[in-house]
Amino acid sequence: MIATQNRQLFDKLGIFAMNIISSPGSGKTSLLEALAGILKEHLVVIEGDVQTRRDAERIEKTGCRAYQIETNGGCHLDAESVAHALKDLKLEQNPCKIVAIENVGNLVCPSSFDLGEHMKVALLSLPEGDDKILKYPSIFRRIGVLLITKMDLVPHMDFDVDRVVQECASLNENFETFKVSSKTGEYINEFCDFLMKQCSALNTDRRS
Amino acid sequence: MIATQNRQLFDKLGIFAMNIISSPGSGKTSLLEALAGILKEHLVVIEGDVQTRRDAERIEKTGCRAYQIETNGGCHLDAESVAHALKDLKLEQNPCKIVAIENVGNLVCPSSFDLGEHMKVALLSLPEGDDKILKYPSIFRRIGVLLITKMDLVPHMDFDVDRVVQECASLNENFETFKVSSKTGEYINEFCDFLMKQCSALNTDRRS
Repeated sequence: MIATQNRQLFDKLGIFAMNIISSPGSGKTSLLEALAGILKEHLVVIEGDVQTRRDAERIEKTGCRAYQIETNGGCHLDAESVAHALKDLKLEQNPCKIVAIENVGNLVCPSSFDLGEHMKVALLSLPEGDDKILKYPSIFRRIGVLLITKMDLVPHMDFDVDRVVQECASLNENFETFKVSSKTGEYINEFCDFLMKQCSALNTDRRS
Repeated sequence: MIATQNRQLFDKLGIFAMNIISSPGSGKTSLLEALAGILKEHLVVIEGDVQTRRDAERIEKTGCRAYQIETNGGCHLDAESVAHALKDLKLEQNPCKIVAIENVGNLVCPSSFDLGEHMKVALLSLPEGDDKILKYPSIFRRIGVLLITKMDLVPHMDFDVDRVVQECASLNENFETFKVSSKTGEYINEFCDFLMKQCSALNTDRRS
């Protein structure tokens, strides 16, 4: 399995890898720009898009390493394209602590494909509405983190955060929630701390 | 082809059918609630969702007829499930002028499946960002209408409407744009007029 080989590479290098999944426009790339500002050289981003290099270019502008995969119509990333990216990124020679794989904007198809990540992270933005968890259960059942994004829009939105967290808990016994705004920076530091702890835990497990 | 049979049924009954496609949370159901308030018994809605009857229930509350298709994991509607819906709706005995088929929230997969509609209509909401057209070209190449939604959020968003329309025009020579807000009603009447004209044109074609 190529996904398993990807995960073995991450484990060998002590890198925590997350697969970031959401609808188009939930703020995946904005989140990664915010994370890049804090994690700097510790973060490497693999961008998945149907078409264009727009997202990788945005990440590169922060000074962070980024690699663009264009699926050319494909509705999700697969482990093989990530394996190619990892080969080109030469992480053995250019180490990092976190690899963030931004999947194609799609709340349905990416949920069932293992890329070799340690954790799936889903974003749900306030403007998408608080009814989405049970309408798209496949992804929310599999996540380790739920990021409720665009929290700066709270005054303009009718969005029940508690409902969302409760509905997610009805599907999934083991996930953390962060209510973030990439615009104001709200809870971005806390999410970075969480990611660095995941990386430390991975390295502790490896040594023990 | 089942899609062709669906279209033949719409043509026979003089019903204009549209296939509504967007990301999750772009405001498809809110738009249909607003249309239902104006078009009333002239509108019938077929709702597609991965899971839950939530959207059909919202439409039914307006007094409008609605039929829910649950794809149970499927990332798009297909012509066969729409044919089943049409059979159950008995449109011969219960006529209408417009059938709106709300596809699964997904900007990638639904674009390549013909359901038997006369026109594909895509929604792009302000919070999704103005960079989406060239990132998801497959759908924007095929639409007859681009609805820019949640226009009430203009003061809070950095969204270049002209860029979106220009990028869409670079892919597609024949589409209309409506800048709407289902919340304030902005340009909803104009879009209803457009739909009723499509229906009239269909019936003129049929008689001539």
